[in-house]
Amino acid sequence: MMKIALGQMEIVPGRPDLNCETMLCMIAQAKAQQVDIIIFPEMAIPGYMLGDTWEQNAYLRDCEYWGNKIINASDTICIIFGNVAVDWTKRGDDGRVRKYNACFTAYQGRLWGEDNYPYPFRIKTLLPNYREFDDTRHFYCTRKLAIELGVPIKDLLQPVRVEISDKTLILGCIVCEDGWSDDYSVNPVQLIAEKGQLNLLINISCSPFTLGKNNKRHRVFSHQAQQIAAPLLYVNNVGLQNNGKTVYSFDGCSTVYNSQGEIFTQSAAFTAELAVVNLDDKNNGPIAMLDDSGIDSIYKALRFGIAGFLQAIGMEKVVIGLSGGIDSAVSAALFSTILPPDKLLLVNLPSRYNSQTTKSLAQDLATRLGSWYGTVPIQQSVDLTTSQVSDIAVTNKNGDKLALALSPFMLENVQARDRSSRVLASLAAAFGGGFTCNANKSESTVGYATLYGDQSGFLAPLADLWKHQVYGLGRYLNETVFNQEIIPEGIFRIVPSAELSPNQAVDEGKGDPIIYPYHDYLFRAFMEHWNRATPEDILNWYLNGTLEKNIGCEPGLMARIFPEPKDFINDLERWWRLYTGMAVAKRIQAPPVLAVSRRAYGFDHREAQNQPYFTFVYLEMKKKLLHQ
Amino acid sequence: MMKIALGQMEIVPGRPDLNCETMLCMIAQAKAQQVDIIIFPEMAIPGYMLGDTWEQNAYLRDCEYWGNKIINASDTICIIFGNVAVDWTKRGDDGRVRKYNACFTAYQGRLWGEDNYPYPFRIKTLLPNYREFDDTRHFYCTRKLAIELGVPIKDLLQPVRVEISDKTLILGCIVCEDGWSDDYSVNPVQLIAEKGQLNLLINISCSPFTLGKNNKRHRVFSHQAQQIAAPLLYVNNVGLQNNGKTVYSFDGCSTVYNSQGEIFTQSAAFTAELAVVNLDDKNNGPIAMLDDSGIDSIYKALRFGIAGFLQAIGMEKVVIGLSGGIDSAVSAALFSTILPPDKLLLVNLPSRYNSQTTKSLAQDLATRLGSWYGTVPIQQSVDLTTSQVSDIAVTNKNGDKLALALSPFMLENVQARDRSSRVLASLAAAFGGGFTCNANKSESTVGYATLYGDQSGFLAPLADLWKHQVYGLGRYLNETVFNQEIIPEGIFRIVPSAELSPNQAVDEGKGDPIIYPYHDYLFRAFMEHWNRATPEDILNWYLNGTLEKNIGCEPGLMARIFPEPKDFINDLERWWRLYTGMAVAKRIQAPPVLAVSRRAYGFDHREAQNQPYFTFVYLEMKKKLLHQ
Repeated sequence: MMKIALGQMEIVPGRPDLNCETMLCMIAQAKAQQVDIIIFPEMAIPGYMLGDTWEQNAYLRDCEYWGNKIINASDTICIIFGNVAVDWTKRGDDGRVRKYNACFTAYQGRLWGEDNYPYPFRIKTLLPNYREFDDTRHFYCTRKLAIELGVPIKDLLQPVRVEISDKTLILGCIVCEDGWSDDYSVNPVQLIAEKGQLNLLINISCSPFTLGKNNKRHRVFSHQAQQIAAPLLYVNNVGLQNNGKTVYSFDGCSTVYNSQGEIFTQSAAFTAELAVVNLDDKNNGPIAMLDDSGIDSIYKALRFGIAGFLQAIGMEKVVIGLSGGIDSAVSAALFSTILPPDKLLLVNLPSRYNSQTTKSLAQDLATRLGSWYGTVPIQQSVDLTTSQVSDIAVTNKNGDKLALALSPFMLENVQARDRSSRVLASLAAAFGGGFTCNANKSESTVGYATLYGDQSGFLAPLADLWKHQVYGLGRYLNETVFNQEIIPEGIFRIVPSAELSPNQAVDEGKGDPIIYPYHDYLFRAFMEHWNRATPEDILNWYLNGTLEKNIGCEPGLMARIFPEPKDFINDLERWWRLYTGMAVAKRIQAPPVLAVSRRAYGFDHREAQNQPYFTFVYLEMKKKLLHQ
Repeated sequence: MMKIALGQMEIVPGRPDLNCETMLCMIAQAKAQQVDIIIFPEMAIPGYMLGDTWEQNAYLRDCEYWGNKIINASDTICIIFGNVAVDWTKRGDDGRVRKYNACFTAYQGRLWGEDNYPYPFRIKTLLPNYREFDDTRHFYCTRKLAIELGVPIKDLLQPVRVEISDKTLILGCIVCEDGWSDDYSVNPVQLIAEKGQLNLLINISCSPFTLGKNNKRHRVFSHQAQQIAAPLLYVNNVGLQNNGKTVYSFDGCSTVYNSQGEIFTQSAAFTAELAVVNLDDKNNGPIAMLDDSGIDSIYKALRFGIAGFLQAIGMEKVVIGLSGGIDSAVSAALFSTILPPDKLLLVNLPSRYNSQTTKSLAQDLATRLGSWYGTVPIQQSVDLTTSQVSDIAVTNKNGDKLALALSPFMLENVQARDRSSRVLASLAAAFGGGFTCNANKSESTVGYATLYGDQSGFLAPLADLWKHQVYGLGRYLNETVFNQEIIPEGIFRIVPSAELSPNQAVDEGKGDPIIYPYHDYLFRAFMEHWNRATPEDILNWYLNGTLEKNIGCEPGLMARIFPEPKDFINDLERWWRLYTGMAVAKRIQAPPVLAVSRRAYGFDHREAQNQPYFTFVYLEMKKKLLHQ
């Protein structure tokens, strides 16, 4: 009877010392339970998202040092774990020392697997280089190694043989992406399995949460287990890692599949835990897959992500500017589930354009949440700025005078900047914490926010949610999390508005220029579709009547919103220009985004500050449409 | 007699239509001069730094459309050019359509080269994935193709045969990095040359300016031409491209080497030009390499970069906050070489801590530059913020009251934010332009700047220069560019200071905590060294007496600055913590940086907001040092 432990640990990126400590602790627990094999995630020692820390040789040596401690702890237990492997005698394509993203199999104080392989570890064959992943920048892969050694790639895909209790186990040891080979010309699992029947396929992963990811993982891995007719053990970490612009939560959900592809056990989401599994136990499984595509998963990921981010940067207090609208309300309600009331300061910052309606809603929400609340009017400062700009004596050496003045549009931005950069930043400092950016993904897409104004903050926790998802999360908070009307119903009902001018008067039903029921979906097609939609695709779908279906918005919407084709065209071009123009400049200086979707802004949405562009085919289609 | 034209064009990234137009114009000029072959740079049609625009199939089709126009223009001239090549029948590793970074050889209205190769174009074999390069994210390379097709990689490195005027030319057609194979296990030039004597080796490039790059390129390419005993033609573009956070200027400097490795001709730096070369002309060359490692190259690159960036984003007017210090002075002087005086507004923004000395220096500089000048005091607004923070009635539902106040340190940041986010941003809007961020690289490294304060702006033109380079550039501007004391001598002599508190009083010689003669070089070792220095390396060098030599600072400095080892340790840890800690958070929201060095902040310095870390070896060395 073989006992296996899944070490679903929290990995602290960039802290090999702490990670080693966590692992040694789990190893001790597993030994106490007579576990035969304990498995830890990919890059368990160093962490995964480290930027260019991989270019520090001292860091690499340090990872080896802490990795050796794990190997030394393998006297009576087989330990399979991820770490960076360094070949100090070779170079990578960048001329730096050769690094591999590797899986180590340690037992009886030494590494196993060198009998049929150039190294005493296995290297990751498929290095993801899409979305937020950057593996190819730092690590050498099996394809390159095969070319270099002049051997067929199949020769480099070998199982690991390890003798435990007089029994030789044949283990397929792969790293994360190696199990997701659909789009690659190389299938590592198949090539390893061709070498003979595996006893176990072990996939060590460091796989960030993405809405619906585990549903897809289940289809792929379940099929894989059946194909190789062996149990598949997927071990993933929990915790938070980031690449600067984008923050990822890791959901764990480590899973054991039996050789029929059924789920035998699965670990909890977003919780560090050591699960001990007896593969021969007939009482286990099959159990159902935990769905991770709903609003409850968004809530869990955000809450876990916010809490983890605060902890990672050592922030214990937060200030939130409360406008009376839905975004800041959801933000405040979310943070209130993490911070005690005395660590949360909510502030309303009215100018002359803010309605009594929203001021009351903000106060009402703050009262319900029970945290600190105050009001800081900004009109006096805005007026001072206005007069300073008008009154400044600007001259040149000829004695000419330059007259300057702020237009109503500029005054909107002055208000937004005054709130964030002048008041919230100062309040946050005095309170001893940071202030949030409450922008949502719809606004971020088209830059409907002011730089150094409402776009600023230490974290943008909602910036990966479309506006309709923010509303959905608000409902979920009231109905499921708080089980009461914490966010006042009025906040759901009021028209979304920035309230920065008379044209945005909520009591007259005036608000944002974004028509969320359409634009949420249009922007998602621009931004999230795997093959990104451009005006050419959108116009093509509009013309052949498939637009609403293809972008997923409500049927019949186009006809209601756009009486004439030219209205449709003007709207499309307006937002495309913003998305690929000014909004890029704003996103370059935006705060980190907490990722939940298949594509978040930041490192998963690389972009250049170039000119908006329309393809030749688009321009021809448009010409034909408007002149017909 | 063969005539060859080097089409050193300006590539506008993301504008295939404009680039095609530029190329057709150069092609017409070349035809008028009876040119046989015209060569354009890598990715001449689409541009190179496009972020994830490569994921838009409509954009790819558009590039094919405009590329076909070039092929059609090849009736009487052979055109070699870079474009994206799409294999619509295959997929890349990300599951999207297969893309290659390709070199096309067109003549007589069709493509050549399919007789010995799977495609009628050549693909880039070596895809750089270090520094700012991201090729592997989007493009499939020869190594992967060889694995997929199951052929040796040498079979896929073939010359292009093209028949021009009844003569068969054997051309080696490679793309940029293919000529820089030192660190790769594959040498494309050698493998192509093994197929038979080449008539020409053509390297189409899209290679950004880096200080000293051409010196290195000359060594590598000169050697290469000798090895293959054939002329080598390097064609590079000019213009500006960016990846959001970092802006690169492209220097051109297209060069023809003869088969002895001597420079036959070279095109100008930072200038679009069509050079027609007769390779048989005995009167040409050899000429000397243009050096690009000095302050004049920094000046040219920055001036070209700033002008190009303004043009690219359509900005015609600029506001610069003038402190009386060196950074803003150099920034203002630089912009004055680009913008006419009436498009440049200089503003001094004094609080109570600004000395008469710096106020006078700022005014003096503005007078010498002749642009618009004004003064906007910020003390009133800073006092308002101070009182609003103290006076705000913060309560909770229990009726408790929270008292808040700004400390002297917080007040420093309040002043900085007031200047940028409140005043400069508003003035820039009213003036009709943007405002600059004048941060230098030393400050950026350790976050010695205020977020939404002096760290903000539309562009940070000096953020890739160490403080001593800023001074050097200031001297160069006075001595060489203006040939007069445009930047007053007092600005060079005054102690560098933020003037945000009594502790930074310049007239008392008080200023920045950064000791530039040492820290400039320490930070450079952290940041620019190819194998990044960490405290472990630095301490090791300190202990064995090689620190000053290894980081390149003045000998004898350590002993003068740090009386005791513990002073050295405290200093080292202080800046390392900032560099890898708070400064990361600030850089995430920093403006785009104009790159000149071998590594600029932004996309060439990927980083995560993790905890500062000290390796085990460092901690042991430190313990030993302090306890001995």
